[in-house]
Amino acid sequence: MKKTLFIGALVAAMMVAAACGKKAQPAPKSALEVIKARTSIRGFTGEKLSEEQINTLLDAAMAAPTAANEQPWRFIVITDEEVKAGLYSGEVHKKMVVTAGAVIVVCGENTRLRRPHGAAPDAEPVREPNPYWYEDCSAATENLLLAATALDLGAVWLSCYPIERSVNRIRTYLGIPETVTPLAIVPVGYPAESPAPKNKWKPENIHYNKW
Amino acid sequence: MKKTLFIGALVAAMMVAAACGKKAQPAPKSALEVIKARTSIRGFTGEKLSEEQINTLLDAAMAAPTAANEQPWRFIVITDEEVKAGLYSGEVHKKMVVTAGAVIVVCGENTRLRRPHGAAPDAEPVREPNPYWYEDCSAATENLLLAATALDLGAVWLSCYPIERSVNRIRTYLGIPETVTPLAIVPVGYPAESPAPKNKWKPENIHYNKW
Repeated sequence: MKKTLFIGALVAAMMVAAACGKKAQPAPKSALEVIKARTSIRGFTGEKLSEEQINTLLDAAMAAPTAANEQPWRFIVITDEEVKAGLYSGEVHKKMVVTAGAVIVVCGENTRLRRPHGAAPDAEPVREPNPYWYEDCSAATENLLLAATALDLGAVWLSCYPIERSVNRIRTYLGIPETVTPLAIVPVGYPAESPAPKNKWKPENIHYNKW
Repeated sequence: MKKTLFIGALVAAMMVAAACGKKAQPAPKSALEVIKARTSIRGFTGEKLSEEQINTLLDAAMAAPTAANEQPWRFIVITDEEVKAGLYSGEVHKKMVVTAGAVIVVCGENTRLRRPHGAAPDAEPVREPNPYWYEDCSAATENLLLAATALDLGAVWLSCYPIERSVNRIRTYLGIPETVTPLAIVPVGYPAESPAPKNKWKPENIHYNKW
């Protein structure tokens, strides 16, 4: 009887320990940790990303808020080696995009359909510039960078809009229509470097109640 | 002997279970969970935020990436009831900012000091428009919203820039200098509502390799 109890207790201890072991696996990094850990990664190992990784990054980007829920973002996921290699001619940028597992170009629909201000509820909507597309797409880009950090990948935000020559060059190269504007070019991949994140906390950038 | 072993095994089981219990406490939400859980919260309980909460939000905002590490963001933290009440005249927005624990106005320095392109390394830097300030500040605003979600607070991005009448009104009301532009007005507080986040995953917004 005692022996049975003893074995029972031992088995219980082992089961608890096993269950505990599962929980003790490295927990996903918290959002605040990831926000503070994110930093620009410009060197990659060349290893490809899985479809699941790429979709997780895009899903995070599409979870950003947008003015009037317009969701103006459009993404171009570049994994083709030739297309990547032609994105930049300069050596530094070329190396980043060529060694990245994927390059995600974040673009935005720059117009939207809206009923004119003060028009009747049954008035036909008209196409007008969307003044918020680049803010919405910037929020999406930040989500993408954070998701990369959360997946232990690295990424860097290479700017495109509003520099006209950059926008035109990328638009032509990727065949992007005139109603869509490329905002950011984001190489993502397995990091080949581990720079410490900058500490950018500056109380002098904070004002209270009025300027 | 058997009894001792039995008690020993029981104690071990209890110790393992206790250690396990600690690990089983609700873990901080992962970054990917927070990114997906974030949604606009427009109703607040009126409860104040602690200084620590506000600083955590600002620290997260200041961790965003910025072009050429310019860190153009400037924040105005409004907790004064009178200043909050004067931010909006319209009933809907007024209620949001009045019941929020704090309102954080995200602004950006719209100029920067730069050596002219191609100038000698010892050339004097000149002040020029910063074409990236609103992208950097949009990334900071998204970090702020995510940090609020991570702290179990709610927040909403009320847009200001680039609508000129909004920018002028807020600039005048808060005494913001001409070299700084208000981008977003973010009420943050304890949520009085719990709307489900939208599912915005749309494969049709994704292109591969070229448009």
